[in-house]
Amino acid sequence: MTLEQRIQKIEDRLALQDLIADYLIAVDNLTDLDDVLNCFTDDAVFDMTAISYPRFEGIAALTEFFTNVFSGMKHSAHYATNFKLDLLEQDRASARTHALGVGVPHEGDSVTFYVQYVLEFARTGTGWKIKSFYGQPLIL
Amino acid sequence: MTLEQRIQKIEDRLALQDLIADYLIAVDNLTDLDDVLNCFTDDAVFDMTAISYPRFEGIAALTEFFTNVFSGMKHSAHYATNFKLDLLEQDRASARTHALGVGVPHEGDSVTFYVQYVLEFARTGTGWKIKSFYGQPLIL
Amino acid sequence: MTLEQRIQKIEDRLALQDLIADYLIAVDNLTDLDDVLNCFTDDAVFDMTAISYPRFEGIAALTEFFTNVFSGMKHSAHYATNFKLDLLEQDRASARTHALGVGVPHEGDSVTFYVQYVLEFARTGTGWKIKSFYGQPLIL
Repeated sequence: MTLEQRIQKIEDRLALQDLIADYLIAVDNLTDLDDVLNCFTDDAVFDMTAISYPRFEGIAALTEFFTNVFSGMKHSAHYATNFKLDLLEQDRASARTHALGVGVPHEGDSVTFYVQYVLEFARTGTGWKIKSFYGQPLIL
Repeated sequence: MTLEQRIQKIEDRLALQDLIADYLIAVDNLTDLDDVLNCFTDDAVFDMTAISYPRFEGIAALTEFFTNVFSGMKHSAHYATNFKLDLLEQDRASARTHALGVGVPHEGDSVTFYVQYVLEFARTGTGWKIKSFYGQPLIL
Repeated sequence: MTLEQRIQKIEDRLALQDLIADYLIAVDNLTDLDDVLNCFTDDAVFDMTAISYPRFEGIAALTEFFTNVFSGMKHSAHYATNFKLDLLEQDRASARTHALGVGVPHEGDSVTFYVQYVLEFARTGTGWKIKSFYGQPLIL
């Protein structure tokens, strides 16, 4: 690889980590829906079926889902660690990251969950976006 | 940007993440006050008013604050994730990071807190330092 | 340093972080023993005596230890943050990282632990490996 290619690879890797941070910061802010949706491609799939959420496909379905999350959640805190890049090509990438989450709904009990996110990314005209977001539980 | 500028940007970003790690490692060691204070500029502001701590301005005030923290705390564990660089210029930068903290005082109950740190940095002759440290709660 | 040396340094640092992620992902999968053992040198030392585990030296001892961990653990979730590179030379390196862990054994109660890992690494023909893994508790 040339020096430029090596730098590009590092930049891409950090950009993907930044995208995960962007997403979690936006989710935990619980205020600006666009900040969340801007993290995803129009055809993104959000699949948390393994942790008892439904599966959503397409930005319209994700909009509805996160609208409900924002109205139902009082507080939310997600912590992503153990980032692992599994694939990095010109326009697509995949990675995994552990996440520890705490959710405090307006009604009902707080929940703490221990999951691993499995992510696929697409490079778009406005940077890397999440194309597929799958959550698998580490602790049931 | 030139290759050198791109490398510099990556180095700066990682140096800022390292600085946050330095600070949290030093705080959780609860032994060497200088290790903590070396992370800050002389005019640094430490503002945890949003999570019921006072606001401190200047290294003398921070010295007193952390002296009290070190004498009052038996154990401490802080975990920073979701680093997000918001600004990077030649001599200043800003970033946010989630933090999960657990504190065990010598007297009283343990506390767990879920916050986001909002940080401003200054580049000094001895590297990046924290100029402003603000904590906002994710979960109240 | 030349640009190439600066890039190499960044790549090495990220490779070490990746290695820690590889290890924790493999441990939490609780399925493929080789995925765990591949993170270590043949003469690796795994020392968790400070948190009431034994000390293991050499890949045969580690194989036996992780075989027992995998058979005894129902679920496991480890989150590493606050990575701090302490030394980086041509063929060896050392670093520290905070870790928050939750273990759910098949029998007995779940445990949550707050530790700092102190790691030494060796560069081998197949990349960086863990040569020494020491855990010290942050909260007893």
